[in-house]
Amino acid sequence: MFALDPQSSVPLVTQIVGGFRQLMDDGALRAGAKLPSIRQFAHAHGVSVYTVVDAYDRLVALGYFLSQAHSGFFVRSRSSQESSSLGGSGHYSFDSMWYLRRIFENRALRSKPGCGWLPGDWLFTEGMRRSLRSLAAEDVDLGGYGEPKGYLPLRQLVRDLLAAREVVVNADQVLLTQGSSQAMDLAARRLVREGDAVLVDEPGYANLLFSLRFLGARLVGAPRTPAGYDLETLEARIIEHRPKVFFTQPRLQSPTGSSASLAHLHRVLQLAEKYDLIVVENDIYADLDPESRPSLASLDQLKRVIYISSFSKTISPNIRVGFVAANPELLEELARLKMISGLTSSEFTERLAYGALTDGRWRKHIKTLKERLAQGQQQLATQLLELGFELFTEPKAGLFLWARHPAVQNAAELAYKAVEQDILLGPGHLFSVDLEPSPWLRFNVAWGQDEAVLRFLSALKAT
Amino acid sequence: MFALDPQSSVPLVTQIVGGFRQLMDDGALRAGAKLPSIRQFAHAHGVSVYTVVDAYDRLVALGYFLSQAHSGFFVRSRSSQESSSLGGSGHYSFDSMWYLRRIFENRALRSKPGCGWLPGDWLFTEGMRRSLRSLAAEDVDLGGYGEPKGYLPLRQLVRDLLAAREVVVNADQVLLTQGSSQAMDLAARRLVREGDAVLVDEPGYANLLFSLRFLGARLVGAPRTPAGYDLETLEARIIEHRPKVFFTQPRLQSPTGSSASLAHLHRVLQLAEKYDLIVVENDIYADLDPESRPSLASLDQLKRVIYISSFSKTISPNIRVGFVAANPELLEELARLKMISGLTSSEFTERLAYGALTDGRWRKHIKTLKERLAQGQQQLATQLLELGFELFTEPKAGLFLWARHPAVQNAAELAYKAVEQDILLGPGHLFSVDLEPSPWLRFNVAWGQDEAVLRFLSALKAT
Repeated sequence: MFALDPQSSVPLVTQIVGGFRQLMDDGALRAGAKLPSIRQFAHAHGVSVYTVVDAYDRLVALGYFLSQAHSGFFVRSRSSQESSSLGGSGHYSFDSMWYLRRIFENRALRSKPGCGWLPGDWLFTEGMRRSLRSLAAEDVDLGGYGEPKGYLPLRQLVRDLLAAREVVVNADQVLLTQGSSQAMDLAARRLVREGDAVLVDEPGYANLLFSLRFLGARLVGAPRTPAGYDLETLEARIIEHRPKVFFTQPRLQSPTGSSASLAHLHRVLQLAEKYDLIVVENDIYADLDPESRPSLASLDQLKRVIYISSFSKTISPNIRVGFVAANPELLEELARLKMISGLTSSEFTERLAYGALTDGRWRKHIKTLKERLAQGQQQLATQLLELGFELFTEPKAGLFLWARHPAVQNAAELAYKAVEQDILLGPGHLFSVDLEPSPWLRFNVAWGQDEAVLRFLSALKAT
Repeated sequence: MFALDPQSSVPLVTQIVGGFRQLMDDGALRAGAKLPSIRQFAHAHGVSVYTVVDAYDRLVALGYFLSQAHSGFFVRSRSSQESSSLGGSGHYSFDSMWYLRRIFENRALRSKPGCGWLPGDWLFTEGMRRSLRSLAAEDVDLGGYGEPKGYLPLRQLVRDLLAAREVVVNADQVLLTQGSSQAMDLAARRLVREGDAVLVDEPGYANLLFSLRFLGARLVGAPRTPAGYDLETLEARIIEHRPKVFFTQPRLQSPTGSSASLAHLHRVLQLAEKYDLIVVENDIYADLDPESRPSLASLDQLKRVIYISSFSKTISPNIRVGFVAANPELLEELARLKMISGLTSSEFTERLAYGALTDGRWRKHIKTLKERLAQGQQQLATQLLELGFELFTEPKAGLFLWARHPAVQNAAELAYKAVEQDILLGPGHLFSVDLEPSPWLRFNVAWGQDEAVLRFLSALKAT
């Protein structure tokens, strides 16, 4: 078939993907042909089964392979290869959504150090329950659609929350959305058209990257550093690719856990001014930040910044209530786009969030949550360092630690292996612009204290 | 400025729009120039203020005029004229969302015969309240995201509902969405790309038309008839425009109230087969249909049909729970698109809907609702006929009556006049493919028994 070189600096998974693509491009493998099973291939080439799993998954994501339940992998027809790859041949397409399916289908896995959410018992469940009871008791009119921009008292509360974060808006500049994901999707649909260059954190928020790929954006990475941004590379890439939008998460970023310094925020806005960029600021971890750090929006006051946050992380992701704040003109456009893409959001869940946020114990809950996360950060950092991991930075707050181990070249392979032990890891390629193999892993400290996970990771030492 | 001809067959509003466009294209009106106020223009040309309101609104929607609060109307700069009109110059653009704003901002109007929803006291409010109370009492885990496709027991219930409608699916082929609007938006985003010809009912569901315009679709109208479709024109338009998708609402259609006969459904599917079309069937009024009528999906069993419905009309629009059913491959793609555009829907509201639907009094509620609507249909039809209206058809079921009056040429003008009397009408152009002036009005029979509305309409006699 083709030969692999274990000594090469090119990762084995990349060699396998490249080898199959060559065979298909040359016509040596035709549409409909059945491919060797994962185990056959691994055995024949003397490589790990997990390497082959990753390679086959990538070939499915690239639109070259078709996976059929119970019968194996087949070569896709050329026409469906093309139609499935919106971003042009050789780019991971909409079909690379296998990632999301895996993450969410794997929610049943016992240990989830790779997931992006908090365990149920870390959330404000008792406040939700009280809110629910009082909503059931009230004589609320549940008929009719809600307000287009969302439940007014909650928008007013958001205005006050933002004032405390030194962002001055009125309630009309706040649009409630179905979680921060809808807010980001609306911003992307409004600002990005097919073929546009779009600047994103590298590594960055996986779901956003998939959403932008679906819109046909050319993703341009702005490398993260422990202090925020690699500002020189950022400017160079702006000059080279001329993006019009920058989607970024300055604070307690997913996946790196890093937060941008005041000086970095200031410089990003200078660049935005100089090169006429709109900046979409994802600040969903603001409530979990023990420091009262500035945001891009607090510097810029929504001139060039669109500010997005949510209550998923602190109340419950299940209620799906988030928001976006922007200058009046942009906000009206986002509101109209929200209306055409799903009418109003649920006033019902918005009232529920309002009830939880105005609950007397809300502040206490947030305080406890921050303490638990700080403790989790410290414990997991210590453990990972002991296991020989290198940490990108030690955020000491928020959900994430970004780490790599010298024995791991391609974290995806490790993740496939982990699934067999009922463990969900967060492999680095999912957070990268090009989805190429990465040694990095995202750890969620709230799920970190798990014997099974530590046992699994300590096996790396021996590798 | 320019002269108007009241005797012309061209509606006055079209003459005014055309006149201003000519002046701007010729450079006689430059960017930033202040325009005469609505009253000034009406007075100077001896036309109704409402005609001018409609014309100015259209010019805003077309991106030619800018409306500034308290200071009047101005000519937009050429560049923003272009950027605002995604569909190309001369087509109503994304900015024509003023319609949705108006509808939803006018919810405060006292009388709403033009709206698309049921009054609060027609909904299953007591069932919602019971469902809410039991949810508050249960020890439900509210942490974590819901299932990607939505709350499984509700999907199983949908499967059973569909079986009763003779559509056989398994629960994995059901995707819960944020109302039917999100389901339609997902289908549109999956199936339509910029510049594609898309077949839609003419007249059709206003929100869908706006959503498709936003995606840059070329809308091709399939004319409705009292029995369903004008099948000859339908086939001719398919041959001419070669659309790949047909969005249609066969049953108790909005705005016409018409339902397609079995023979029409069969023929539509034959055409879909012959010309390789996917049909997106909006069946949101199925529960309100006293007859057990076939649907496209019941004939085709989801080979070419994507089936969409919701619980907004019978439980409450406020909970925002709808669904889409499709063949497994398409459904997986829609599910992934749902995930990237907003992650999971709210399991919370899905549990609430489930509680209401499994409430012992649910069937009784639906029965009463159908009786009230049948009565409302009969009453309003009689009244409109007495007032000299012509009815498109007499559906005797569902929410809508589609009617026109010989004294009305442009229903939009009447609608602007009605707003001043605290009445929300549904003018026909909103439901049309080209948004051109129309004499038709959509009436919602549930809001029809209103003295103020009848008084307002009876003034037409004298006109």
